[in-house]
Amino acid sequence: MQIAVLLYDRFTTLDAVGPYELLARLPGAETVFVAKEAGPVRNDQGSLALVADRPLTEVTGPDIVLVPGGPGSRQAMRDETVLDWLRTADATSTWTTSVCTGSLVLAGAGLLTGRRATTHWLSLEDLEAFGAEPTGERVVFDGKYVTAAGVSSGIDMALHLLGRIGGDTVARRLQLLVEYDPRPPYDAGSPEKAPAEAVAYWRGHQDRAPAARG
Amino acid sequence: MQIAVLLYDRFTTLDAVGPYELLARLPGAETVFVAKEAGPVRNDQGSLALVADRPLTEVTGPDIVLVPGGPGSRQAMRDETVLDWLRTADATSTWTTSVCTGSLVLAGAGLLTGRRATTHWLSLEDLEAFGAEPTGERVVFDGKYVTAAGVSSGIDMALHLLGRIGGDTVARRLQLLVEYDPRPPYDAGSPEKAPAEAVAYWRGHQDRAPAARG
Repeated sequence: MQIAVLLYDRFTTLDAVGPYELLARLPGAETVFVAKEAGPVRNDQGSLALVADRPLTEVTGPDIVLVPGGPGSRQAMRDETVLDWLRTADATSTWTTSVCTGSLVLAGAGLLTGRRATTHWLSLEDLEAFGAEPTGERVVFDGKYVTAAGVSSGIDMALHLLGRIGGDTVARRLQLLVEYDPRPPYDAGSPEKAPAEAVAYWRGHQDRAPAARG
Repeated sequence: MQIAVLLYDRFTTLDAVGPYELLARLPGAETVFVAKEAGPVRNDQGSLALVADRPLTEVTGPDIVLVPGGPGSRQAMRDETVLDWLRTADATSTWTTSVCTGSLVLAGAGLLTGRRATTHWLSLEDLEAFGAEPTGERVVFDGKYVTAAGVSSGIDMALHLLGRIGGDTVARRLQLLVEYDPRPPYDAGSPEKAPAEAVAYWRGHQDRAPAARG
């Protein structure tokens, strides 16, 4: 089973690494980070680059496709090389997945038209504008298309996928391995739970968010 | 405020990226990934490299030091170049932190002797052997030394640190930004909660764990 993680300039790191850390540990999985060109790809914050080991042209039939979000998704979703690769990979994939605004890239490739999907809470309206049917859920399955909400939600998505692919025993083992027993000291992880101040802050500073349109 | 994230061969990716994703978004923070030599550093799974932008010699006075864990921690904790750097950085740091078996590297540098600390659940005895006083808590503060349990716990550690450094308002904003509203579909994230099968599995396969002694 091959897992391909797509990188593009200004992706959000945890979107990719959260689910990668779990999915890549599935027994029998081979994971490869891909980009238009092999080599370092710089993230949204500018302070970290991840290495894409192979170019898109060399990885055309992955079983699982994972698309992270980030401000760069706005360019990626209009990049015909990326979109053509996604359509090709999706034609034979078992699961086509995204985290955060990665779903906008899938939508840009036409893969989410009429499907239930999600994205970062700041981008739900954009997802609808590109033809999907956004929901407020943290992880959304619609057939083989699996989309997660903002950034850290990819970890929950990965656990759901581990259960579907490897079964509950494998999923629980890997949850234990990465000690995913979350205990956030605040309860502000969604727009429904966060103080109004925090919601308003990001609506006023979307340029600084992974969901940025820039 | 400068944050230095240490990379070494066979580190566990989420250990570094989980807290990075939050801490690096602190207003005024500058984050730099460092290693003995600048360039790509390969992770524990072998399928991903992160780029260290600067060598240790160029980053000697960070305000926050973050040391991830991973099987490679067993080499790093005996690498005098790494340990000398840690002692130097710690001499002027505001916070010296680790995730998972990163605490073994701090202990190797003599920084946790007699201090309350934690690590991956599979390595608590090793941490004690190296002079620290391990606890079963997910995030442990002992003065400026902050250690987190396995892999994903670094995200919780970062939220605690955000609160101490930037205040509750900033911490809640960033929790909302990354939508950290965890909803794991299983409740197997600690040895107390996981099925006995899962605990036994990893005790029998420590070579495959981030806490591996190899």
